[in-house]
Amino acid sequence: MALSKKPVTGMKDILPEEMEIRDYVMGVIKDTYGSFGFTSMETPAVEHLENLNCKAGGENEKLIFKILKRGEKLKLEGDLKEEDLVDGGLRYDLTVPLVRYYAAHSGELPAPFKALQMGNVWRADRPQRGRYRQFMQCDIDILGEASNLAEIELILATTTTLGKLGFRNFQIRINDRQILKAMAKYSGFAEESYDEVFIILDKMDKIGLSGVRSELLSAGYEEAVADRYLKLFEEMEEAEDKAAYVMEKLEDYLPEDVRSGFQEILESVNASKGDFFELVFDPTLVRGMSYYTGTIFEIAMPEFGGSCGGGGRYDKMVGKFTGKDVPACGFSIGFERIILLLMESGFKVPGAAEKTAYLIEKGVSADVMTKVMRQAQEERSAGKKVLVTRMNKNKKFQKEQLKAQGYTEFQEFYREALKY
Amino acid sequence: MALSKKPVTGMKDILPEEMEIRDYVMGVIKDTYGSFGFTSMETPAVEHLENLNCKAGGENEKLIFKILKRGEKLKLEGDLKEEDLVDGGLRYDLTVPLVRYYAAHSGELPAPFKALQMGNVWRADRPQRGRYRQFMQCDIDILGEASNLAEIELILATTTTLGKLGFRNFQIRINDRQILKAMAKYSGFAEESYDEVFIILDKMDKIGLSGVRSELLSAGYEEAVADRYLKLFEEMEEAEDKAAYVMEKLEDYLPEDVRSGFQEILESVNASKGDFFELVFDPTLVRGMSYYTGTIFEIAMPEFGGSCGGGGRYDKMVGKFTGKDVPACGFSIGFERIILLLMESGFKVPGAAEKTAYLIEKGVSADVMTKVMRQAQEERSAGKKVLVTRMNKNKKFQKEQLKAQGYTEFQEFYREALKY
Repeated sequence: MALSKKPVTGMKDILPEEMEIRDYVMGVIKDTYGSFGFTSMETPAVEHLENLNCKAGGENEKLIFKILKRGEKLKLEGDLKEEDLVDGGLRYDLTVPLVRYYAAHSGELPAPFKALQMGNVWRADRPQRGRYRQFMQCDIDILGEASNLAEIELILATTTTLGKLGFRNFQIRINDRQILKAMAKYSGFAEESYDEVFIILDKMDKIGLSGVRSELLSAGYEEAVADRYLKLFEEMEEAEDKAAYVMEKLEDYLPEDVRSGFQEILESVNASKGDFFELVFDPTLVRGMSYYTGTIFEIAMPEFGGSCGGGGRYDKMVGKFTGKDVPACGFSIGFERIILLLMESGFKVPGAAEKTAYLIEKGVSADVMTKVMRQAQEERSAGKKVLVTRMNKNKKFQKEQLKAQGYTEFQEFYREALKY
Repeated sequence: MALSKKPVTGMKDILPEEMEIRDYVMGVIKDTYGSFGFTSMETPAVEHLENLNCKAGGENEKLIFKILKRGEKLKLEGDLKEEDLVDGGLRYDLTVPLVRYYAAHSGELPAPFKALQMGNVWRADRPQRGRYRQFMQCDIDILGEASNLAEIELILATTTTLGKLGFRNFQIRINDRQILKAMAKYSGFAEESYDEVFIILDKMDKIGLSGVRSELLSAGYEEAVADRYLKLFEEMEEAEDKAAYVMEKLEDYLPEDVRSGFQEILESVNASKGDFFELVFDPTLVRGMSYYTGTIFEIAMPEFGGSCGGGGRYDKMVGKFTGKDVPACGFSIGFERIILLLMESGFKVPGAAEKTAYLIEKGVSADVMTKVMRQAQEERSAGKKVLVTRMNKNKKFQKEQLKAQGYTEFQEFYREALKY
């Protein structure tokens, strides 16, 4: 048998039980972001290779599934370069395609443009448990909004969505690339070393203050600079209001509007949010992608070690396509992790319709069949779910299986007459 | 500027207005098929090349987007064959992946398995107006149901869905590959010529009886055979009940259960359907795919020349994967055509929530901002759509644009105080 029953390496089939939860979660996401004025949009799965390789994808650029050129007979001899063979690839995220889309269509889009995207992305990662080469991303972005209204709306919309899905006691951690830079400047690091310093700082939750200190020293930074830097973090830990403390310290290093803008995000969200999550200033939050220019944030779930999504401001990316920068801010929800958490918690989709199964004996007359079908249509238009199926020889076992699928009512139709 | 703003050749970006309709249609499809007991499922976009090339894809097998192998350094010298470079491709339909999925998971699936799939497929067709290289397919299939219950349910579920989307006066045309064969046998065609005969018959609606006759003769068939064949179609045209007429004629060529089973489909559907569509026996309906083994059907819309979907029974395809045949029957809705028809008719998504826009003047105090956000959250939880946006200098123009996006209520928030 030449045909393969398994999905291709690293990708998965989605079974009905999981699909029901996915459909429900997608519905909640669409409705909730919709209530904030976000509109759905979609880009093709295939993207120009030159766009995918524009340096906005970070490490993901190494993981592109490339697509063989079409439309001409491929020359497969001589010394070939990869670019002779391929010119497109499967998108590895939704951000690069979004920015291309915005660059192409901004004249036809609302300003600011509040976009919701749910779509698959593909990364040729080493296959491992719980990590797939095709997975769904859910991104919301606001393009054309320079003020912190974008951050406030993104955080409120995302947390409202998570709340509707039943998540409680999670944190949104927030920081700003400009605060990160100001802290480094205040401490005496040279600008060209910021990126390396932040990579070390990012390990704070794993290796602690002393670990960060020794890594900074082994990387060759001056002890006095490192200590001045770490003292900031130590003192913040002790401060009653971390953000207020560091804003005062950084008064000469950070423009007033950045300081007040950041505080305003904290205040506005805290005043209008429910008590099911916390918004926390986390001065050690770095986020990997180099395209972030301002605020950055991350979802931390108590049920889950890592992050369940995150995002930030990236004001310089549209300019790569158009030559003209447009303010942009986005939040990506870790859709697959959320589905995994819901599956593991035994989540049941709420408000599912009552499910009735009609069992029809083999050989019923056309008359009976007609009556059954008509009755099923009536019950369906009244809002019920009605499965019409043949009665098996082992009816008891069949009913047990149907019960396991959520069918609670049964009607049986026999050859001789309607018995029910 | 190296970056390309356009989508890749032949694929399209979907703008918010179209997306709103697509989301709505997908919702109606999920709900309606759900009420018939269909469950959603999904397969990866990438499929094994050997499966895609298993002869179940017909002409589509020539249109595969192939994906460059990963995980090893590609050797790009010497005489290369294509199979050295690629082992997977983007799926060109949802049927081949469904059958693989069923072969892999049948033990975990309900029996019969009523599957609903909505997903993109990719075909490297020559780009042309209204025809894209990525498009959404919507397939519903019943696997493991040998009786005509499958056909009845598929037709009722699909027409109910189309009815809910507002379509009226369309036709479902139905035929059976076994009736086609019996008609050919009755007329005296040899079995090995059936396929060619059917290809000619398929042109009936374009070239008429006389056209079909002359093509049969130029293909070298006997005049007596061709005439006996065409007389069947002529007499059916005049018969009061085409199906009854041909069933009687074919009494010796078609098993009794096929004849009564086909009639039962017509009767059951006609008795339980509304009057918004017709189910019509069309003895000239052929359908291209070679995998059909029994009933075949097609949606014909008055607004649209070609077919808006179709399907049939394909009882021999699961066996290609497992060695054991499983009865199967499916219907594929022409999702993109339906969206196109709705867009062209100026379709508006019904029951959309009331949309309010809050316009906030630049520089409002953190206090005002907080109040605005809190009020917006309250209105949203009460079911409203609330867009919070900065007030532009040209407020009048801004409001006009928002009205065009469907915002009907406005509230304005100013720097000094709340004025509304």
